[in-house]
Amino acid sequence: MSALFNTTILGSSAAIPTSLRHTSAQVVQHHNRRFLIDCAEGTQMQMRRFKIPLMKINHVFISHLHGDHYLGLPGLLFTFHLLGREKELHVYSPPGLQEIIEVQYKLSELTPSFPISYHELTQGRQPVYEDEKLCIETIAMEHRIPTYGFLLKEKPEDRKIIKSAITKYNIPTDQMQGIKKGSDLVAANGAVISNSLITKDPLPSRSYAFCSDTAYTERFIDQVKGVDLLYHEATFMHEKADIARQKMHTTTTEAASLARKAGVRQLMIGHYSARYKELSAFREEAANIFPQTILAREGDVVPVGKPSSPTG
Amino acid sequence: MSALFNTTILGSSAAIPTSLRHTSAQVVQHHNRRFLIDCAEGTQMQMRRFKIPLMKINHVFISHLHGDHYLGLPGLLFTFHLLGREKELHVYSPPGLQEIIEVQYKLSELTPSFPISYHELTQGRQPVYEDEKLCIETIAMEHRIPTYGFLLKEKPEDRKIIKSAITKYNIPTDQMQGIKKGSDLVAANGAVISNSLITKDPLPSRSYAFCSDTAYTERFIDQVKGVDLLYHEATFMHEKADIARQKMHTTTTEAASLARKAGVRQLMIGHYSARYKELSAFREEAANIFPQTILAREGDVVPVGKPSSPTG
Repeated sequence: MSALFNTTILGSSAAIPTSLRHTSAQVVQHHNRRFLIDCAEGTQMQMRRFKIPLMKINHVFISHLHGDHYLGLPGLLFTFHLLGREKELHVYSPPGLQEIIEVQYKLSELTPSFPISYHELTQGRQPVYEDEKLCIETIAMEHRIPTYGFLLKEKPEDRKIIKSAITKYNIPTDQMQGIKKGSDLVAANGAVISNSLITKDPLPSRSYAFCSDTAYTERFIDQVKGVDLLYHEATFMHEKADIARQKMHTTTTEAASLARKAGVRQLMIGHYSARYKELSAFREEAANIFPQTILAREGDVVPVGKPSSPTG
Repeated sequence: MSALFNTTILGSSAAIPTSLRHTSAQVVQHHNRRFLIDCAEGTQMQMRRFKIPLMKINHVFISHLHGDHYLGLPGLLFTFHLLGREKELHVYSPPGLQEIIEVQYKLSELTPSFPISYHELTQGRQPVYEDEKLCIETIAMEHRIPTYGFLLKEKPEDRKIIKSAITKYNIPTDQMQGIKKGSDLVAANGAVISNSLITKDPLPSRSYAFCSDTAYTERFIDQVKGVDLLYHEATFMHEKADIARQKMHTTTTEAASLARKAGVRQLMIGHYSARYKELSAFREEAANIFPQTILAREGDVVPVGKPSSPTG
């Protein structure tokens, strides 16, 4: 079984929320870490609704400074303070968010109980986060104001030593680290046992790309090539392609074409314009071009990649 | 039947929203006018949920600049813009809100489609709004930062001319306006018919006081004396009186005592701390002191005053 890697949809609506759909927010969980991507109005309530522990969020990524992507952040920060948070919070966004937050702290005469590190995003394909298992880099969107997508990639895991081989070949502890990295075993008698006989492939690395908001562009296609899950905005259906172009958004068919060209495993569309009540036609239109298309629906926990059995 | 005068509760929670309770917001309807008092995170979604037409809001009153009382305003303003609003919006608040809004317009590179008039509140008992039927004045709260309550008072209506008297005394049109104001009728033959014979009392004027957030204070008791409905925060139950005092909030028993001393018709308590799940004990504790106490519950449309039959 591969470890957890999924995204929980908290908001699926474009600019205007409806009575049924909130604006943009997702919580990506990788192993025991949770990353908040976009934080629209109502995000903290959605997190409570879907039982996501607020205090587990240490990293927030804001795609851009249109209200439907960040307006829930001040409220989340106030709540962190009221709950007595002490742990540092990292906030990644295009320049300006710090100014928005700090004027509100000033006027509410409040000093937050925890430090906030603001990381300003200024270029696409920029590494912004790394831990022992995962790295995150920005993706350049094409929108009316500076906007970034995010690519979350698992680091390649070590090879797995086959349990039965440990006793069979009496593998000494001091060689194990090297064998996990691909070295052959050198036995006590000098014999060399090929790595392929004593290890199996690790689980394949998985990757998730979050791309919103953006006009249709193939500029970042190389970067998202073959990702397990591509979230791509599809604000409009094909019939509104003119409006999409004018507002620098993408249509269903465009998102599906991009997914096909990039050879991704699965496409999730979202950021639906409030003018659409029913979404099944959205999926159908995209699936005509790229069958592995799913709809972003609030509360859904969407796995990134399928848990595949290791070979060997 | 008296015309509509009621308040719809959109949020009843104190600082931290819960999965069931939103933070502070109410829409007061008087005749065909609607006034938004406080606009916490999620207000625009709550308005859609409770079928309140967003575009009918032309006046927004913000009690103070703690996040749980205004964080939904930027989103509502963005939505107004996206819906193509042209009508002027009046926003009343302590100084600073304009700065909060404008930095967000600047960073989203957006010029709103409609004019916004910011009215800065700087003193209690200040008239801030008046139309032909209603006037609104501020009430000085006692809180950690400048905070204002709002008193909405109907203007006294004219006396009603009794229909049967019009034909019986052949009341000429040019005297009607004066009679409605209390003049006697002067008949064609010079006889004087007492006003009390030809008119009946108008419906009594109704009044609603919104008081949140505040420490317990009797400073504004004269101003809210005898109001039909007093909304008063009761963030804590009596057992947490110490915390209430420290945070400059009010308890159930204090709100009820104030209601009793002010001789109001009905008390509605709200702004409940997120630590309380169940609210029935809240009402009980207040009702022990002031029996005409109700709980603010989201979605409730609470009438201001009882529709009473005119006398005569």
